[in-house]
Amino acid sequence: MTTYAAPIRDMQFVLHDVLRISQQDLPGHGDLDREFTEAVLDAAGKLAAEVLAPLNAVGDRQGCRLENGVVRTPEGFKAGFERMREGGWTALDCDPEFGGQGMPYVIGLAAGEMFSAANMAFTMYQGLTHGAYSAIHAHGSDEQKATYLPKMVSCEWTGTMNLTEPHAGTDLGLLRTKAEPQEDGSYRITGQKIFISAGDHDMSENVIHLVLAKAPGGGEGTRGISLFIVPKFLVNEDGTLGERNAVSVGNLEEKMGIHGNATCVMNYDGAKGWLLGELHKGMRAMFTMMNEARVGVGLQGYAVAEAAYQNAAAYARDRLQGRAVTGDANPSGPADPLIVHPDIRRNLMDQKSFLEGARALAFWGAHLIDRAHLAQDRQADDLVSLLTPVIKGFLTDKGFDCAVQAQQVFGGHGYIEEQGMSQFVRDARIAMIYEGANGVQALDLVGRKLAAEGGKPIMAFFEMVKSEIKAQETDEVLQAQFCEPLKAASKDLQAAAMFFMEQGMKNPNAALAGSYDFMHLFGHVALGLMWLRMAAASRKALEEGTQDATFHETKLATGRYYMARQLPATAMHLARIRSGAEPVMALDAARF
Amino acid sequence: MTTYAAPIRDMQFVLHDVLRISQQDLPGHGDLDREFTEAVLDAAGKLAAEVLAPLNAVGDRQGCRLENGVVRTPEGFKAGFERMREGGWTALDCDPEFGGQGMPYVIGLAAGEMFSAANMAFTMYQGLTHGAYSAIHAHGSDEQKATYLPKMVSCEWTGTMNLTEPHAGTDLGLLRTKAEPQEDGSYRITGQKIFISAGDHDMSENVIHLVLAKAPGGGEGTRGISLFIVPKFLVNEDGTLGERNAVSVGNLEEKMGIHGNATCVMNYDGAKGWLLGELHKGMRAMFTMMNEARVGVGLQGYAVAEAAYQNAAAYARDRLQGRAVTGDANPSGPADPLIVHPDIRRNLMDQKSFLEGARALAFWGAHLIDRAHLAQDRQADDLVSLLTPVIKGFLTDKGFDCAVQAQQVFGGHGYIEEQGMSQFVRDARIAMIYEGANGVQALDLVGRKLAAEGGKPIMAFFEMVKSEIKAQETDEVLQAQFCEPLKAASKDLQAAAMFFMEQGMKNPNAALAGSYDFMHLFGHVALGLMWLRMAAASRKALEEGTQDATFHETKLATGRYYMARQLPATAMHLARIRSGAEPVMALDAARF
Repeated sequence: MTTYAAPIRDMQFVLHDVLRISQQDLPGHGDLDREFTEAVLDAAGKLAAEVLAPLNAVGDRQGCRLENGVVRTPEGFKAGFERMREGGWTALDCDPEFGGQGMPYVIGLAAGEMFSAANMAFTMYQGLTHGAYSAIHAHGSDEQKATYLPKMVSCEWTGTMNLTEPHAGTDLGLLRTKAEPQEDGSYRITGQKIFISAGDHDMSENVIHLVLAKAPGGGEGTRGISLFIVPKFLVNEDGTLGERNAVSVGNLEEKMGIHGNATCVMNYDGAKGWLLGELHKGMRAMFTMMNEARVGVGLQGYAVAEAAYQNAAAYARDRLQGRAVTGDANPSGPADPLIVHPDIRRNLMDQKSFLEGARALAFWGAHLIDRAHLAQDRQADDLVSLLTPVIKGFLTDKGFDCAVQAQQVFGGHGYIEEQGMSQFVRDARIAMIYEGANGVQALDLVGRKLAAEGGKPIMAFFEMVKSEIKAQETDEVLQAQFCEPLKAASKDLQAAAMFFMEQGMKNPNAALAGSYDFMHLFGHVALGLMWLRMAAASRKALEEGTQDATFHETKLATGRYYMARQLPATAMHLARIRSGAEPVMALDAARF
Repeated sequence: MTTYAAPIRDMQFVLHDVLRISQQDLPGHGDLDREFTEAVLDAAGKLAAEVLAPLNAVGDRQGCRLENGVVRTPEGFKAGFERMREGGWTALDCDPEFGGQGMPYVIGLAAGEMFSAANMAFTMYQGLTHGAYSAIHAHGSDEQKATYLPKMVSCEWTGTMNLTEPHAGTDLGLLRTKAEPQEDGSYRITGQKIFISAGDHDMSENVIHLVLAKAPGGGEGTRGISLFIVPKFLVNEDGTLGERNAVSVGNLEEKMGIHGNATCVMNYDGAKGWLLGELHKGMRAMFTMMNEARVGVGLQGYAVAEAAYQNAAAYARDRLQGRAVTGDANPSGPADPLIVHPDIRRNLMDQKSFLEGARALAFWGAHLIDRAHLAQDRQADDLVSLLTPVIKGFLTDKGFDCAVQAQQVFGGHGYIEEQGMSQFVRDARIAMIYEGANGVQALDLVGRKLAAEGGKPIMAFFEMVKSEIKAQETDEVLQAQFCEPLKAASKDLQAAAMFFMEQGMKNPNAALAGSYDFMHLFGHVALGLMWLRMAAASRKALEEGTQDATFHETKLATGRYYMARQLPATAMHLARIRSGAEPVMALDAARF
C-alpha cells in the first residue's frame, strides 16, 4: 500500500517566496497571504491524504463497470466525491456568481496537484467538469450559464469533453458527428465519440456533455465544426431533471491505467443538443480553455510522480540491503538502508530535483493564466501560451520517467501490483497521450507558438532569463552554481530557435524533425529558470535569518543537482536538432 | 491485436556480414553457412509468428491461476509448449550428449529473440530451464547430469532459479533458507523464496528447482551459501517420477506484466535436495552462468521492443491523420498517413536505429560467449564479462523506452489494452528489474568490471574501437558519418573512465554516483561501434554489387540516424559523471 503526504511546505514556498502572490496585483485577490493559503492547502491536503489516497488502489483494482447501460464507479468513490463536494473543493476557483469560491486558478491548481497525486482517476471526474464549466462560462448564453453552471460548480452535475472519434483523433477535421438544426432552436446530434473520460458514472445526477459536431453550411475540415451542450438528462425550465436524452454508453474501455475513471464510447442517436457559442466556431470555443486544460494535464504528470517519489524515498530509507562503500551506516543491523547507495541517491535526486522544479513551473503557468484572465495582462497570456506545450509535454514525459524510476527503487517488489508502484507508472502514462499527445504539443510549440506575435513571446522569455541572471550578478554562489549553467542552457535554446528560423523557409521539415527535442530543451531551460528563482529565494531567506534553514539548504542542494546533472541535456537536444531533417526523413515509408 | 514478423533478413546480415560466423573458428561448428542458418531461423520465425505470437494477448488477459496448489497456465500455452518441444527448439544449443542439437549459443539467442518478441512470458518457461540446465551441466556430477539433463533439454522437465527471499534481493548474504545435511547425503531444505519465475505450471511433468541455501559451517554472508537441486517430484533410480517433494507454491504474484508466466512464492518445508557443485560455493556456481543469463535478459529488452516497433510502424503507415507540411502525400484520401509527419519519423527512427544496433550487440555478446566456451578464448571471455552489464542494463532501459515510444504512435488507442501496445510496455518493464536490477548492473560495471584484470578488457575495447575506425580511413563517407562521431563518443567514455580512476581512491562514491550514466555512455559507444561495423559491411556489399541494395542503403541511413541523433548523448553522460558525488550525496536521508 502506498501513502501520500501533501507537500504544503513546498507549495507555500512557491506561492509566497517565489511567486510572491500576495504582492501581485490580482484584481479581487488582495487577501492571499501565507496564513490564508496555508489553511486552504492544509484542508485540501487532509482530504487528499485521508480520503482520496486510500481509494487509489481500490479504483485501480476494481475499475468501473457498465451495468445495464449505467457506469458503476469503484467502492467508496461516491462517498469520496460527496466529501469533495461538501468541502466546496469543486467550487474553489469558480465564479462566485454561480456558487464558486472565487479563488485564483493557482490555488485551484495547488489543490488539484494534491488531489491528482492522491488519486488521479478519481480527480478527473472533477477536472473534466471544471473544463466544461469553463467553456460554458466563457461561451454560454446567460440562460445556459444559469441552467448549468451552479450545478457544475457543485459537481452535482459533472461534465465531459467529446472530441475524438474512431477515425479522428488529432485531426478533428475528419470528424463525422452531425448536428441537425431543429425548429425549436435545438440540434439533433448523431455520431459516435470515443475515449470520453468520466463519460458516465453514478456519482452525480446528470452529466453535461460538450460535443464537437458538424452542422450544415460550415464547409470542410475544422471550419465546419460547432460545439454543443448535450445533457444526459434534459433539464426542465424549473431546473429539475426531465427525460433521458438519446445519448448512451456504447462501451467502457479497458485501459492500461486510470481504471477508476470511466473511459466511455458515447453514442449520440439523435440526442438533443444546444449550440454553445457561435455556429461553426466550435474549435475556437473548445480551445479557449486549452492553456488551462493542458497546464492541468502537465500537473497530473508531475503530481502522480510526486506520490511515487514519496513512496520510493520511504522505501529507500527503510529497506535494508547491502552496505555503504564508505563504511557501514547501520552497523547494528543486518545491512544498510538502500538510501546509502549513491545510485539510489542519483535516482531519488533525479526525481526530487525535477518534481520541485515542475511544481514551480506549473504554478507559474497558473499564475500567468490568472494574470491574463483577472488583470487582462496580454504579455502574461502570450507567455503562458508559449509555455503551455512545454508544461504539458515536458512535465508529463519526465513525470512518467520519474514514476518509472520510483518503481525501480523497489526492485522486484515494484513490479508486483499489490505494492502500488505499478499503478503510478500506468496512470502517469496517459498524461503523455491525452489532451494532445506530446508530439502534438511539440508541433504546437515549434509550428505555432514560436512564431506567434512575430516571435515576441519567445524573445520576452529570453530577456526574462537574461535579466534574472543579471539580477544575481553580485551573488557569486548563485552565479557559479545556477546562473552559469542556465546561461549555457538558454544559449542552446536560442541556437535551436535560430536554426529553425534559418531552415524554416527552405525546409519546414527541419523544424518539425527537431520539435520534440526543442520541447525538452525548452523544458530544461524553464526548469533551470525556476531553480534560479527558487535558489535566489532560499539564499534571501537564509540571509534574512530564516527559522527554517534546513528547508532552504535542502532547496539549494536540490537545485544544484538539477543544474549540474539535468541541464547538460540541453547540448544533446541542440545537437540532435542541428542534425536536421535528413536523417529523420531519409527512408521511404515502406522501409520501416 | 498485434502481429509479429521474424526479422530474418536482418539476423542473417548480423550473423554473416557482420560477425561472419561461418569464417570464425568455432570448434565443432564448421557448418554455419548462410543456407543453414536461414533454414533454422526461418523455422524458428514461423513458430514464433504462427504459434507463440497469437498466444501473447491470451497470456496477458488470462494470466496464470493457482488451483489446489497447482498452477494453471493460460489457454493454449500447453499445446504451444508441446509444439516448441516437438520442433526441438528447447534443445537448440544444448549438449548432444544429453539430446541437444549442439548449435552455438548465438543461434540459440537468435531463435530466442524471435520467441521472446512473439511471447516473452511464454518463452521464459524455456529460458529458465535453459539456465538451470547450464548450471547442472557445468557443476553437476555425472549422475546428476544423467538424471536431469536429458529431460531438461527436451523441456519434459522445466527448471527454475531460486535466489530471492522477502528480505534478501540484491543482498543475497541476508538469505535465511537452510539446508540440513542428511545421512543419505541429501539435504533438507527449509525456507521461503519469492519471485520465482516459472515456479510451477502444468506444461511439464516435473520442475527442477535450483535453490540457494545456507548449509552449516559456511560462515556469514554469501560465503555460507550453497546451491541445491530440489525437484518437485523426486526421481526414482530408473528415472521415473517418485513421490512429491515438500516444496509448494505459497502464492502467485499479480504483476504489472508477463502475466502468462507464473511468478511464484515457493515454500520449502524440509524438501529433499542435493548439493550441486561444491559446498559453500553456491554463489560462484550460480554466477558461472551469469553472462549468458544477463545477455538473455538484455535480449528480452530489445526483443519485446522490436515487436512493439513493428506494430507502431504498421500503424503509422495505415492510420490517416493530418497532412504533410510539404504537400499532401495521399491527395485522394481524407488525410495522409501518420508516417509523413517528421515527429512520427523521429519516433520510429529512434526505435529502428536502436533495435538494429541492439541486435548486433547482443549477437556479438553471444558470439563472444561461444568463443569463450568453445574455443577457450580468454580475451573473448574477459570482453563479454565487461560488456554483459551494458548489454543487460542499456538494452533493457532503451528497449523499454522504445516500447513506450511505439505505444505513443497509437495515441489514445495505445492506452487501450485491446490494442496490445500496453502489454509490450508492461512486459518490457520487468527486464530492467530482474536478473540484477539495472542499478546493480551499473555497479557491477563500474565497481568490478572496469578494474578487472587490471583494466585490460576496457583497454582492449578502446583499442578495438580505435583500430576499427582506422580500418576505414580510406572511406570518406564512413569517416564523416560514422567514424568521427564514434571517435568523439569513445573519447567521452575514456574521459569518464579516467575520471573514475582519478577519483577512485579518494572518493569511491564519485564512481558509484556516475555508474548509471557510465553504463549508458558505454551502451552508446558499443552501439556506435556496432553501427560502424554494420555500415562497413553494407558499404562493402554495395561496392560488390549486391542484389539487395535497398536493404544496405536502408541500413546505412538507419546508422547515420543513430550516429547523428543518439550518440550526442555521450557528452551529457560525461558531464553528469564529472559533476561527481557531491550533488548526489549532499542531502541527509531524512531530507528526501
